[in-house]
Amino acid sequence: MKQVGREIPRLEVRAKVTGRADYVHNLRLPGMLYGKVARATVPHGRIRRIDTASAQKIPGVHRVIAGEDIRKLIAEPYYGPAFHDQPILALNKVRHVGEPVAVVLASDPHVAERAAQMIAVEYDELPAVYDEVAAMQPDVVVHDMLKPAGTFADLKHLKGRTNTNVALDYHLRRGDLDAAMARADRVVEHTFKTQQCLHLALEPFVSVAEPGDGVLTIHTSSQTPSFVRTEIARLFGWPENRVRVKVPHLGGGFGAKVYVKLEALVAALAVLVRRPVKIALTMEEQFYMITKHPTTFRIKSGVDRDGKVVARACEVFWNGGAYADIGPRVTQKSGFTAAGPYDIDNINIDSYELYTNRTPAGALRGFGIPQLVWAYESHSDLLARELGIDPVEFRRRNVLREGRPQASGTAMKDAAIAQVLDAIAARMGWSKPFDRGHGTMRRGRGIAIGFKASISPTTSVAIVNVSADGSTTLYTSTVDMGQGSDTAFAQMVAEILDLAAEDVRVVHPDTDVTPYDMGTLGSRSLFHMGNAVRLAAEDARDKLRALAAEAGLPEGTNYPPAEIFKKRYGMQAGNIIGTASFVPTYKSPNAQTGLSDNVTPFWMIGGAGVEVEVDTETGAVRVTKLVNAADCGTPINPAIARTQLSGAAIMQLGFTLSEDMRLDGGQVTNASLADYKIPGIRDIPPMENVLVEAEQHSGPFGAKGLGESGTFGVSPAIANAIHDAVGVRITSLPITAEVVLRALRAQAGKPLEDE
Amino acid sequence: MKQVGREIPRLEVRAKVTGRADYVHNLRLPGMLYGKVARATVPHGRIRRIDTASAQKIPGVHRVIAGEDIRKLIAEPYYGPAFHDQPILALNKVRHVGEPVAVVLASDPHVAERAAQMIAVEYDELPAVYDEVAAMQPDVVVHDMLKPAGTFADLKHLKGRTNTNVALDYHLRRGDLDAAMARADRVVEHTFKTQQCLHLALEPFVSVAEPGDGVLTIHTSSQTPSFVRTEIARLFGWPENRVRVKVPHLGGGFGAKVYVKLEALVAALAVLVRRPVKIALTMEEQFYMITKHPTTFRIKSGVDRDGKVVARACEVFWNGGAYADIGPRVTQKSGFTAAGPYDIDNINIDSYELYTNRTPAGALRGFGIPQLVWAYESHSDLLARELGIDPVEFRRRNVLREGRPQASGTAMKDAAIAQVLDAIAARMGWSKPFDRGHGTMRRGRGIAIGFKASISPTTSVAIVNVSADGSTTLYTSTVDMGQGSDTAFAQMVAEILDLAAEDVRVVHPDTDVTPYDMGTLGSRSLFHMGNAVRLAAEDARDKLRALAAEAGLPEGTNYPPAEIFKKRYGMQAGNIIGTASFVPTYKSPNAQTGLSDNVTPFWMIGGAGVEVEVDTETGAVRVTKLVNAADCGTPINPAIARTQLSGAAIMQLGFTLSEDMRLDGGQVTNASLADYKIPGIRDIPPMENVLVEAEQHSGPFGAKGLGESGTFGVSPAIANAIHDAVGVRITSLPITAEVVLRALRAQAGKPLEDE
Repeated sequence: MKQVGREIPRLEVRAKVTGRADYVHNLRLPGMLYGKVARATVPHGRIRRIDTASAQKIPGVHRVIAGEDIRKLIAEPYYGPAFHDQPILALNKVRHVGEPVAVVLASDPHVAERAAQMIAVEYDELPAVYDEVAAMQPDVVVHDMLKPAGTFADLKHLKGRTNTNVALDYHLRRGDLDAAMARADRVVEHTFKTQQCLHLALEPFVSVAEPGDGVLTIHTSSQTPSFVRTEIARLFGWPENRVRVKVPHLGGGFGAKVYVKLEALVAALAVLVRRPVKIALTMEEQFYMITKHPTTFRIKSGVDRDGKVVARACEVFWNGGAYADIGPRVTQKSGFTAAGPYDIDNINIDSYELYTNRTPAGALRGFGIPQLVWAYESHSDLLARELGIDPVEFRRRNVLREGRPQASGTAMKDAAIAQVLDAIAARMGWSKPFDRGHGTMRRGRGIAIGFKASISPTTSVAIVNVSADGSTTLYTSTVDMGQGSDTAFAQMVAEILDLAAEDVRVVHPDTDVTPYDMGTLGSRSLFHMGNAVRLAAEDARDKLRALAAEAGLPEGTNYPPAEIFKKRYGMQAGNIIGTASFVPTYKSPNAQTGLSDNVTPFWMIGGAGVEVEVDTETGAVRVTKLVNAADCGTPINPAIARTQLSGAAIMQLGFTLSEDMRLDGGQVTNASLADYKIPGIRDIPPMENVLVEAEQHSGPFGAKGLGESGTFGVSPAIANAIHDAVGVRITSLPITAEVVLRALRAQAGKPLEDE
Repeated sequence: MKQVGREIPRLEVRAKVTGRADYVHNLRLPGMLYGKVARATVPHGRIRRIDTASAQKIPGVHRVIAGEDIRKLIAEPYYGPAFHDQPILALNKVRHVGEPVAVVLASDPHVAERAAQMIAVEYDELPAVYDEVAAMQPDVVVHDMLKPAGTFADLKHLKGRTNTNVALDYHLRRGDLDAAMARADRVVEHTFKTQQCLHLALEPFVSVAEPGDGVLTIHTSSQTPSFVRTEIARLFGWPENRVRVKVPHLGGGFGAKVYVKLEALVAALAVLVRRPVKIALTMEEQFYMITKHPTTFRIKSGVDRDGKVVARACEVFWNGGAYADIGPRVTQKSGFTAAGPYDIDNINIDSYELYTNRTPAGALRGFGIPQLVWAYESHSDLLARELGIDPVEFRRRNVLREGRPQASGTAMKDAAIAQVLDAIAARMGWSKPFDRGHGTMRRGRGIAIGFKASISPTTSVAIVNVSADGSTTLYTSTVDMGQGSDTAFAQMVAEILDLAAEDVRVVHPDTDVTPYDMGTLGSRSLFHMGNAVRLAAEDARDKLRALAAEAGLPEGTNYPPAEIFKKRYGMQAGNIIGTASFVPTYKSPNAQTGLSDNVTPFWMIGGAGVEVEVDTETGAVRVTKLVNAADCGTPINPAIARTQLSGAAIMQLGFTLSEDMRLDGGQVTNASLADYKIPGIRDIPPMENVLVEAEQHSGPFGAKGLGESGTFGVSPAIANAIHDAVGVRITSLPITAEVVLRALRAQAGKPLEDE
């Protein structure tokens, strides 16, 4: 292949480094108003009154709008991908600190900001719940009633449920757990926890709504333009073709910018005031939008004397915060892989999505998998120790091999689990002698692997437009937020139409221009849209051949398109429009057992190997080597694939060692990049990024997605390495020096006193 | 049919009356510079020097650019649809007063205007030629060498011709003219002339070029976005997919806004200064852009004693002005119908496109036909008088009947010539007694018919996009400039997809979005794009049916699209993209004889009947009744079709009675709406607009274009009516009171003295 496999730089690199790439933050429209949001100051409370008078008085303020104003426009102003539970602006109640209560509109954003601070809201405060396990008891109920979105058959049974915080409970039953546990030689149980953290895209959320002639245009930093279009149309009761959603470049998404975020708000405001409205969040405000689920995971395994896991029970509690967003799907879609990439005959999984009074939690790179791997791979090492088996060897005995059924009953296909494990072990020199350090500086190493199913069933549509001079343009609604999809798709189109990838123009999402795509999430684009792009390019190629035949050009010989058009139309005229839709087959799980033999179109496999130095005096942990490996099928652009691996690993490194969104009485105490520490360039360890050569037979040119695979193994591999170095086991994230030091002191029988 | 045939208002009416329709004149972009053009003050001259220093000194002037600056960017900065003869800015020579010589760029348009007036240009003046017949002699040569566009095989033989002003000469030879003339009972010859006039769209020319990331976007008031894209790409040597042309609403076009007008200039400027550049012309400047050909037509007929025309010789001289624009095609494509819609066995046609030192002439509603009909229908009446036959009866004896070959040899098909003639006669009550007035107020009536071939071969492509909720969007590059194409196409799509036309969204031309179309000109859209739209909608309908089958829905039953998508994709997801190209068959005329049996996909037929009052004391002419009739096949929206007829007739009324672009030494002396008189509301006579029911079998739903048919008969019908009223024959346009009075006095042997 000439184009697929090339390691060309991203198509947009030049535009980005020269500052010419356009972002919604740069967009200014004539007559545009800036909206500034006044946010809830209490975690849970009934709104007694909203005093907007003094804000309204500030010179330059165009209008102040609260929830009731929006209700005049939209009778049911609630949105959400799984549940219609989130009000565009708070109505009657607020459910988390930072929830939008009112908006000030002004031509000058600074005026809007000053005025927003003048809005006084009186609340009757209500008791709040923050912990996912505590939320299982309905002592505090966050939502009076569950309101699943009408569209999903599998959520219908939840409709109208009251007196509960459990938005969704997912259960899987495979084999006979109790009998197998009873037969097991040893039964071991642990509990692991993860913290709340967030995406922190360096481009904060921003949306602009522009009322036009029969059409409302929304310019937004979204990963899901097609969904935004559908959801906004639903809210207003309009047909889809009256809503236009445009997405230029994105400054990172990581799952934060999926579904509806600011779009419903700016849309409602723009329709109310009949002027363009822009809302651009600050870094601080991002802490009140969407986060990663805190979790509590109780995992219990029964093993036989050969180190084979015969039974596993998983109980996962997902802290979804105040609004469901896509959390219920995390609970469910990730839930069924909670037992890990291991071949276990008897499995129970119980997974619960819980409402609490925190910032909502949704999708974040990995879609729940890193929380699961954190637990089951820490657990794997503890099992191996228990049995005195080398941790790599222990995994080798248990990993799911090609063709074996996963917990759901779906057979593993094109899933290089063992190969990823072996690749990491090899790069770590696992069998070779290892310097364990000395004195106060102890060294250890650890390994971890994980897997993920792709979201299904989802649809992608692509259009390939060949101009009369043969120059070609690709239309997809996939959002390139840095993952390199534009480039990979251009390489595929170029491969099929015999062009240079650099010459293919990729038009960015614009629902008036680019056809439907379910969304840029779950590492689905390269596989789903990739297949649609491949088919659309093949359609264009076939139509070109037909045109050549119409033009009377002899078959077989490959004429340049320009020549074909000229011959057929008598001049440089015409177009070829190649189109295709792609949707993989899927079988929804049985409602009782949670089993299905076709839950995913492909499997993502990733793992990490880590070497650490632990300072036993301070608890400081330094990662001295990080090996990231993943099965990415046959990569379209290996260079970009490797950056996807390292990017994911670095992000997870932050979630492992430092990032932690701290709450005090429901108030976020570190809502800034100064206090909330993401990895800096000096925190990045020496890394090796290994693409395990494989082939995804159902993928375009053998490829599959890998935007998340790099996150899977990092956290448990580090905990395992620390245990290996200093013999303490950390069971909660993040693993700060303080946490390690406390564990060391406790181990030494001299617990650290709190000041 | 439920949607086709409905008389719904235009889709955009609401946007237009509420002022929300967007025009390029309203477009402001960040960092945009306004360009003001400094124009040639002499009709023909060599540029000795251009002094831009004093203009450059004016505070606020960003830059002054002349032809040589553009040559640094584009080696061959000449454009044109038929000849590459027109420089983006004058190089070495200027060829007409008002030719662009330099441009001042400034953020403030008033600054740019003031500075443009400071630009001093020194010329070596050259002798000039203004008359089309005089230009046949190469005493003054406007262009040193002919430069036909490479794309057209039929122009290749002109390449490199020197020492001539004849840009194109077209000749048709049918039968044996000389023998037939010799046999004829009577041979009559006349010469008729038309004046230079212009389109005067109430939205003057305006274009904005916006340099972007890898793409140059041109927002322009153009009737031919696809051509602009191709031509700009050619000038810069770029692939088409690096140029994006967007056209919002148009405030009238009438053939002025075809091909390249300001687009090459703003594109070159924007690329030079790397900022958006806007040029918006004043009303006055429109007089220096593009006009309607002045013509001299020598027509000679041989008739037998039954009033049958047996031979006709036509010699037409087209005054093309300084640059060819599309003039050569007027000479050619209209040339072959110069003998009129009559069944004549022996025909010679010689048609010449001439360069002169006037503002260029191109396409104007009718594309040369009104000039031809003016001559051959004035001539018809004179022949009838000569033979003492009623003029309607005379025409009945000679009109081309269905199936008979037209001069070119192409058979008349779906051409209701006789029916149009009869319809006019009937509405005029031709057979009934007629009040001829008395004293100084004499009344008369006249009739005239004409026909036109459609431009061929040309291509149109359409896309019909059905969203998951069934709402539908149509993409075409047809420009709706008031003719109602958006509405007519929406009605066709709605008919096929069983929707309401009002619910179909029509996306306006954007070459990144809407597929190729040759252009909105020559009344081709309803037929050509209409066929593409119909086929694309049928493609969408078929794909919907296929999707229903995939979804396992039983055949035959018509499910709402929303249901089909939901069933197939498990949610409101997906798209159907229907596409189609349409290009009619065509046979290019024989180079020697000008004959072809397939020159046009359809025929346009139009005519007028007129009653006038002539004041014999003042020469004032008042039209008291105007009947416009045309064959429009089966109208898609009869109400809009009738407004097309009346609009065309009113426009031609101005060209007949008042409009006249006057020259004095090459200077336009009436370049303003104050001095150049277009018809006002009080000039509009009582009108009847008659759609002659017919069917264009090859047209979409039996329809054909009629945007020009209303222009054909007006001028000669008025001249014929004046002759009928007061016995004088006017042979030159416009027919002002002064012209009529002079004729009356001459007739009375008391010629009017000039003051």
